[in-house]
Parts: sequence; structure tokens; C-alpha cells
Amino acid sequence: MKVQTLKGFRDYSPEEMLVRQALIGRVQKVFESFGYAPLHTPALEYAQLLLGNYGDEGEKLLYKFQDHGKRMVALRYDLTVPLARYVGMNSSMRFPFRRYQIAPVWRAERPQKGRFREFYQCDVDLVGIDSAQADAECILVDHAVMQALEIEGYRIMINHRGFLDGLLEHLAIPTDKVVGAMRILDKVDKVSAAAMGEMLTTEGLTEAQVDGLTGLSAIDGPNEDRIAQALELAGNHPKAVAGLERLQQALEMVAVTVGEAPVFFAPAIARGLDYYTGIVYETFLPDRYGVGSVMSGGRYNELLGTFAGKDIPAVGISLGIDRLLSALAAAGEQESIAVSEILVSTIKGAETGACKVAGILRAGLAQQGTGIELFPRPQKLKKQMDYAHKKGISIVVLPGPEELEEGKVTVRHMGTGEQIKVSLEDLVAQVERLLEG
Amino acid sequence: MKVQTLKGFRDYSPEEMLVRQALIGRVQKVFESFGYAPLHTPALEYAQLLLGNYGDEGEKLLYKFQDHGKRMVALRYDLTVPLARYVGMNSSMRFPFRRYQIAPVWRAERPQKGRFREFYQCDVDLVGIDSAQADAECILVDHAVMQALEIEGYRIMINHRGFLDGLLEHLAIPTDKVVGAMRILDKVDKVSAAAMGEMLTTEGLTEAQVDGLTGLSAIDGPNEDRIAQALELAGNHPKAVAGLERLQQALEMVAVTVGEAPVFFAPAIARGLDYYTGIVYETFLPDRYGVGSVMSGGRYNELLGTFAGKDIPAVGISLGIDRLLSALAAAGEQESIAVSEILVSTIKGAETGACKVAGILRAGLAQQGTGIELFPRPQKLKKQMDYAHKKGISIVVLPGPEELEEGKVTVRHMGTGEQIKVSLEDLVAQVERLLEG
Repeated sequence: MKVQTLKGFRDYSPEEMLVRQALIGRVQKVFESFGYAPLHTPALEYAQLLLGNYGDEGEKLLYKFQDHGKRMVALRYDLTVPLARYVGMNSSMRFPFRRYQIAPVWRAERPQKGRFREFYQCDVDLVGIDSAQADAECILVDHAVMQALEIEGYRIMINHRGFLDGLLEHLAIPTDKVVGAMRILDKVDKVSAAAMGEMLTTEGLTEAQVDGLTGLSAIDGPNEDRIAQALELAGNHPKAVAGLERLQQALEMVAVTVGEAPVFFAPAIARGLDYYTGIVYETFLPDRYGVGSVMSGGRYNELLGTFAGKDIPAVGISLGIDRLLSALAAAGEQESIAVSEILVSTIKGAETGACKVAGILRAGLAQQGTGIELFPRPQKLKKQMDYAHKKGISIVVLPGPEELEEGKVTVRHMGTGEQIKVSLEDLVAQVERLLEG
Repeated sequence: MKVQTLKGFRDYSPEEMLVRQALIGRVQKVFESFGYAPLHTPALEYAQLLLGNYGDEGEKLLYKFQDHGKRMVALRYDLTVPLARYVGMNSSMRFPFRRYQIAPVWRAERPQKGRFREFYQCDVDLVGIDSAQADAECILVDHAVMQALEIEGYRIMINHRGFLDGLLEHLAIPTDKVVGAMRILDKVDKVSAAAMGEMLTTEGLTEAQVDGLTGLSAIDGPNEDRIAQALELAGNHPKAVAGLERLQQALEMVAVTVGEAPVFFAPAIARGLDYYTGIVYETFLPDRYGVGSVMSGGRYNELLGTFAGKDIPAVGISLGIDRLLSALAAAGEQESIAVSEILVSTIKGAETGACKVAGILRAGLAQQGTGIELFPRPQKLKKQMDYAHKKGISIVVLPGPEELEEGKVTVRHMGTGEQIKVSLEDLVAQVERLLEG
């Protein structure tokens, strides 16, 4: 029997988990500051509820099986369909319903470098309200998350599906070519206008249609100018006008709430076609991070209706935690966190004394969240020091049997090498001083 | 298609999750203050790694299926076997290795009231060291968790498997009767000595053997006395002597570390027979909570060897979060937590103004973790006030269009009914005053 993780799956070591948890903690604090509360849904759902939502390709990736009662069940594929199921089951829910969920999802994708079959999604959704205020709120949450994570140079790109619908109708692009055209449009940041034009021609669009769509990549300037150019391109089609009016309201609300924010109208962003019905969001980091969008979402006013039996509007945004963590690591901006700041070493003959010293330190410092660990058996001091060093522990307390009899211990600062002898009465104060210094 | 959770599974609403998260947060803080760090292992493992660890009955409850690559896989059944797999895969690990993991496990148990097929385990384990200091540490963690959760009247009961082994050998109980006898002994808190005696006789034990075992329930007094009585009962069998010496060391270390703590030697506690090799723990709450043990564990020096290829000692303890939460709810001691303290209402014609007001409040208060939500569209004020009331929101800010023109808003304290008009400059200070008051 080989002792290994399942193919496509991985562990996160304590060192990795401390970094993840710190990041998730900051994100949760932002979500909660806007009034979002956590929801838990089970890992397993009736397969039937999940089927029909992810397309043929998506469905192939579902972990689906028969349970002990011969029910077809499946591991959740995302957090949105379980939310829809929850909303559908709780018809007396008060709106606005703001929830977040940070939880793993499972997809049997072909394993690739950095991609796993179990990964975390981190979703906030505002359910039950269709308004520019709600549209603006996801931008504000996104902005606040990026600020809380101290990421510099991010750009929040927004578009409105109404604008794209209006443009497509204005250009008279046939329905059966819409999905293909949109897929090409979504590449606007990655390929040149010329390359995009070629792809669209291959797709069977006319020259005028190709010119209209590639014209999107020429739109530039401040948001007001971009909106004017986009409306012109769409021939002021009423759907485009309505969509961009709504977008402008949201932009104004963002500006009034937080002043300057890096939010840009990006008329080519589509985010797939079959799901979103209004505003859409993407968040790009500067090139040094080497990733695509790390936070994205949009308004979906029809999806929840599938389960609720009536249309319930909703808007949401999702943070790609795994992607963001690897981006921060790649840019050398990932913090490293030591769980313990203090090691109490155990010297032969002073086992009980070491317990007493750890107790004094914990009574004085644990409330503040200081991690204090005891080396739980006597061992060569060199080994204990090496253990402390490798774990990034700052302070080692050395309670020797003779010293303890005088009510004293030696305290060593691992960074500076400073080593002092202190009485047990002064221990907490001296350790605090060293930790601050 | 019925919109429902899978049989045996449940959601946790935002209200329930806020309470769970607060409890888990306190527990995590205790764990980390002792130097335990989080580990993540995947939900799915190779089935082969899990099989052979849980007995025939346990194995029937495994969610086991073939994945897309025809591998037999299974959802984890506990957090201990995945830990063993992790330790086995990471042979260069430094000891002591302290980890905690708070995560769901899945068991296809027959659904009963209050029991679900997905539930959380919350484990701390100290791997790699076999010492009384390590044995004592789990007691200290248990004690610190109970104190952090402000639970009164808990009793931590400990025993040592060496004592039981010595007693069984002293009484010459045949090997094939040990498991049955232990299962009956574990009922010591639930049935009378007479009833226990009857069950043991039915099991085929001799009168002397029955007297020896039921004698356990007569052991009483302070820990020192209990230990003396227990040793007498076991005829000072060397295994019993060694086990109880080790237990006494751990008790002394606990006393030296925290002074008085409600830790009791309970010679009948067995916690199954096939897993633990040294100290065992149980934690009982006063009757008003109406539950069994909420935190339990012990030393297991052999289990990790299965995967590591060499014996690695370990000791651990596990908190039953679901059981504890329902106990707190049953005793009326469960806190209720509102995610938002402040609602900014939206009045028709003042949508943008409401955004501005929410922005001012968030800039001033969100850093401190205050939840501030915006009612994201105009609606009858009565409905908005009702929404705030039902969500337990303390402060409602009412930015009316005319007031806003004068740079003012009305602030209402939902508890006292106090309603004041304040300028936008004073808003944060006034709201802070009301929140404190």
C-alpha cells in the first residue's frame, strides 16, 4: 500500500495553512463589515440538483456516485448552485440576503501544475435586490478586499451585459454565432485587435461585424469617454443605453462612497454568456503577479429562479484564494507566519519546572494571542535551539534546575542573540519587552 | 425535482454559522496559544488507506466510490487516519509536531435526531514525543478550551490504559473476554454497580473477576486516595504501577502549571481498547447540559506506525463541536450574534446619499470589525426598520434627501428608541457613543 494523497489532491502544511488562514481572516473581516454572514451547505447534494447547471463539459467533472440508500449524490462543484438550493428551500427569507461561503469544491479536472481537484471558493452574494446600489456594493467589497490584502496596482474592470446584447443586436450578429464571438472577445487582453479580427472572420462574421467588435479594443480614456465611445459603437441601441446608464450609476455610487478607486469600464469583458444578466466584474493584478483575474462575478437575475420557482435577482463576486496565494508567493509578497513566538525548553531534571514556566507565560500572554510552546521532553539543548530556529520562534526560555531553585530562568532572543537571566516575577514583562524590541 | 438537502445532511444558516464560527475562533486561539498549527488534508483519500482502521461496522459507513480514473476513493471518516498518512509521507518532519484540524468528516450513519452524516471534528495532536509533559499538555489544552468557552462545572476525567491492563491481568480475565468487559466498564457513569455486575456475570466472568471490576466504581476521594485504592484493586501489578506513576506525573505537571484544575483520576474509563496505549481523557459537563463527554482522546503510540513504517508516539484530544453547541443551546447558554450593528437605510431620492453615509461609517468603524450594511434600494421605512429589528441591528441611520442637503442625518438606536439628528462630521463619534451606551 502506497502512502500518498489521492491523484489531483494535496495537503496544506501548517506553514501553508497559517498563511491561508491569515488571508482568509482578513477577507472574512471585510465581508462581515459589509453585513455578509457565513452560510454552510453540505459537501454532498442530490446529483439531480447539480446536473443541468454546468454544461456537458462541467458535468463530466462532477464526482457523482450512489450512496448507501441508492440515491445518486454528487460533491458540490461550486457554491452558487447550493446557494440557489438554499434560497429555494427558504422561501420566507428576508431580503436583502447577504451571505458569504468559503469552502472547498471538487472537480475531476485533468491535473495540471498548480491546479487541483479540490480547491476553495470564496463567494459573497447579495440576494433579492436588483439595484445599482447592490451592483456598486460588489465593487466596494472587491476594492476593500484588495486594500485589506495590501495589494497594489489592482484594476477592477466592469461591463454590463445589456451593453453587449445591444451591440450584438446593433451589429446583427446571428444568435448561433454569439457564443463563439463572445469567447473570442473575452481574449481582448491577451491578443491584438488584428488577431482577434482574424478569429472573428474565421467564425463567419461579416467585415462590418468584425470591425464593430474589434472596435471595442480601441475604446480608451477616462470612464466617461469610454462609455460615450461604446454607445457610439453600439449605435445607441436601447439595451446598450440602459445597461450603461445603470453602470454609470454604480460608478457614481462607488465614487461617492470611497472617492477615487481603480474601477474601469471595460466594454469587451463578457464572462461567458449564459449566466450573467447585468453588471460583470473582473479584477486584474499588475504583471509581476503573473495571474489572470483574481476576483470576479456579476449579476445573475435568473439562476436562482430555477430552484425558487420565481425569479429572484442576485449579484455576487468571488475571490480566487488559491490563485491569489500563488500570485503573492510568485511576487515574493507572501507573508510567513510563525505559530509560536516563545519556546520553553525542557532540561533534564527540570521537567516540572518547565511546565511551571510555560504556565506563567501563558497566564500572562496567551490572552493576547501569543503562541507559547513547551518542548515536551528533555533533549540536547542544541537540538531544542535548532527546533526553535527552524520554526521561526523569537524567544527561547531556558529553565535550568539550579536557576529554578533561585526562582530564575535564562531568556534568549533568537534574533539578536541577547541572553538575560530574569526572575520568574519579571519573566512576563521581560519577554514582552524582547518581543516588542 | 424536489429542492432539498440530501438525506442525513443539513445546512447551517448564517445565524447558526455566526455562533459556530465564534466558538471555533475561541478554540483555535487556545490551540494556537499552545503552539498547535492548522493542517489541511483533502476530503477524499485512497479508500485503501482508510480501510482496516475503523472495524467492520465503521467500514460499512464509509462513503466509498470509484473516481474518474477507476481508483477506489473514500470521503474521510475521521481526521486521525489522514494525520497518520500525512506523518507517514513526511518522514523529515521535526518533532514535536503539533497540529490541529477542524474539518468535516462523513459517515453514512442511520440518521437520528441531532446526528448527521456530515459533522465536524476538531482535533489537536502532539506527535513524536512520549512523555508525561505531553500527556499533561492535552489536559491543559482541554482546561483552557473549557475556560475560554466560559463553561462552568466541567470535569476532566483521566485514566491510564496501563492501569487497566494490569488490573485485567491481575484478575486473570481471559483475552477473549477483555473487549466485552471493557465495553461494560465504560458504562460505569450510567448504570449501578449491581447492574454492571450482572452484565459482567452474563459475559461469563467469575465472581472474583466481577468483584474486582465492579470494585472500580467504589473508588472515591481525592486523586491521591483514588490512585492508592486502584493500585490495591490491581494487586500492585507492575503495569498498573507504571501507568499510574505516569498519570501522577501528568497530574503534578498540570497542578504546577495552572494550580487547581478539575481533573480527576477515573479508573473505569476505558475509551475502547484497540487504539489507545497510555493516558485517556474524557470531559463531562454538569447535568443541565444533557450530554456525554464533549472533549476526549488519549495517547496512541502505535497507530501512526502503520503508515510511517516505524512507531511514532502521539497523544491527542478532540472537541465535539456539534455536541457542545447543542448542549449550550439546550442549557440556554448559546450566545446570539448579529453580523451587522448598523443599517444605513435608503430613502427614495437619496440612494447616492445613502452610499456616501455608509462610506463614512465604514471608513470610521470597519477597521474595528463593526458590521455596517446598506439597505440597497429604497423601500418603505417601516419595512427597513422591521428588517433591522429582526436581524438584531442596534443602530439605523436614516439619510433623508432634505437633511442630507444640510449635511445631516437622523440616527436611531433600536434598543432605546433614542433618535437624534447629527451632522455628517459628527456621525462616526455619535454612532460610537450609541454603540457603547
